[in-house]
Amino acid sequence: MKQKLIDASIHLFDEKGFTETSVQDIAGEIKVTKGTFYYYFKSKQELLRDIHLNYIGYLLSQQDEIINDTSRDSRNKLHDTVFMLIHSIRNRRKSARIFFREMRNLAPEYLEQNMEKRDLFRKNVQGIVEEGVRKGCFQEDLNTDMITRGILGVANWSYYWFNPEGDVSDEELTNIYLEMILNGINKK
Amino acid sequence: MKQKLIDASIHLFDEKGFTETSVQDIAGEIKVTKGTFYYYFKSKQELLRDIHLNYIGYLLSQQDEIINDTSRDSRNKLHDTVFMLIHSIRNRRKSARIFFREMRNLAPEYLEQNMEKRDLFRKNVQGIVEEGVRKGCFQEDLNTDMITRGILGVANWSYYWFNPEGDVSDEELTNIYLEMILNGINKK
Repeated sequence: MKQKLIDASIHLFDEKGFTETSVQDIAGEIKVTKGTFYYYFKSKQELLRDIHLNYIGYLLSQQDEIINDTSRDSRNKLHDTVFMLIHSIRNRRKSARIFFREMRNLAPEYLEQNMEKRDLFRKNVQGIVEEGVRKGCFQEDLNTDMITRGILGVANWSYYWFNPEGDVSDEELTNIYLEMILNGINKK
Repeated sequence: MKQKLIDASIHLFDEKGFTETSVQDIAGEIKVTKGTFYYYFKSKQELLRDIHLNYIGYLLSQQDEIINDTSRDSRNKLHDTVFMLIHSIRNRRKSARIFFREMRNLAPEYLEQNMEKRDLFRKNVQGIVEEGVRKGCFQEDLNTDMITRGILGVANWSYYWFNPEGDVSDEELTNIYLEMILNGINKK
């Protein structure tokens, strides 16, 4: 039931927005009473926190696998990171959009928790870039912080437009972006 | 007065959100009556449309200058596009955030107007990439649509984190990103 309430609210928050969605709307969506809602969540804000924590928790656990795969070099790990982000659009687009859009509706203590995890995710990607510099895969003089944010920009932006059912698959898009990030678009 | 109302609402929409901000809040912010507001705008939604049209209109006019500057090649024009987007954060961050976040609060006819202009902006950037391919600056087999969206991702994402008063200037950030986009991060 808890998951059903979460799923219904993800759908409604994405469609109408967090503020515009009432607890009554969420309960009504799956034909239960408000009492049922309050049995599982103290408030709508607690539910929003759960959506955020679920989403970033999912990304961090996927990232963990990528980082610890000793069979992959830094280029592969960057590839896997971008693929993971673009691939998760298929199932997690709504969660991701709520994640980016409704953050300011989190209570300050939840927001902080959330920011810490987001920062950890970004710093882990930066770790991959730095490993690549150290091991001689990437250029020595990179501003690894800014480059990491640029790479995340490429991947995260796709949440706003990418259609996984369209002409270009998530795998193809990842390869196009990795090629640009690694080798650039200049004619050699 | 109209501009004052727009400025006050940009501030409030960014801080509290469009739905959470009332006409009373906007009027109160600059100490005028609701009547004054309704003298200039039919509704809060019309004001939101104006913010969106102002913002995209500003980007399109800047873009026009870049495209028509015959002294610049395709690489320079890409540079100027990314710089223009990152540079405008200083003065237009709030407008930009409202642009991306509150789009779904636009009435359908306004939304369509807005999407057309956004598409035009993107297609113009794609035109720069295609010109570069034609003239032999960029690789022949680029997926220019996907590459354009990737470049816009790098630039637009910076609205979420870039601090123009920080260690890295808008000009430096542009150069870091152009270097990545043109030549990649791989060690040569």
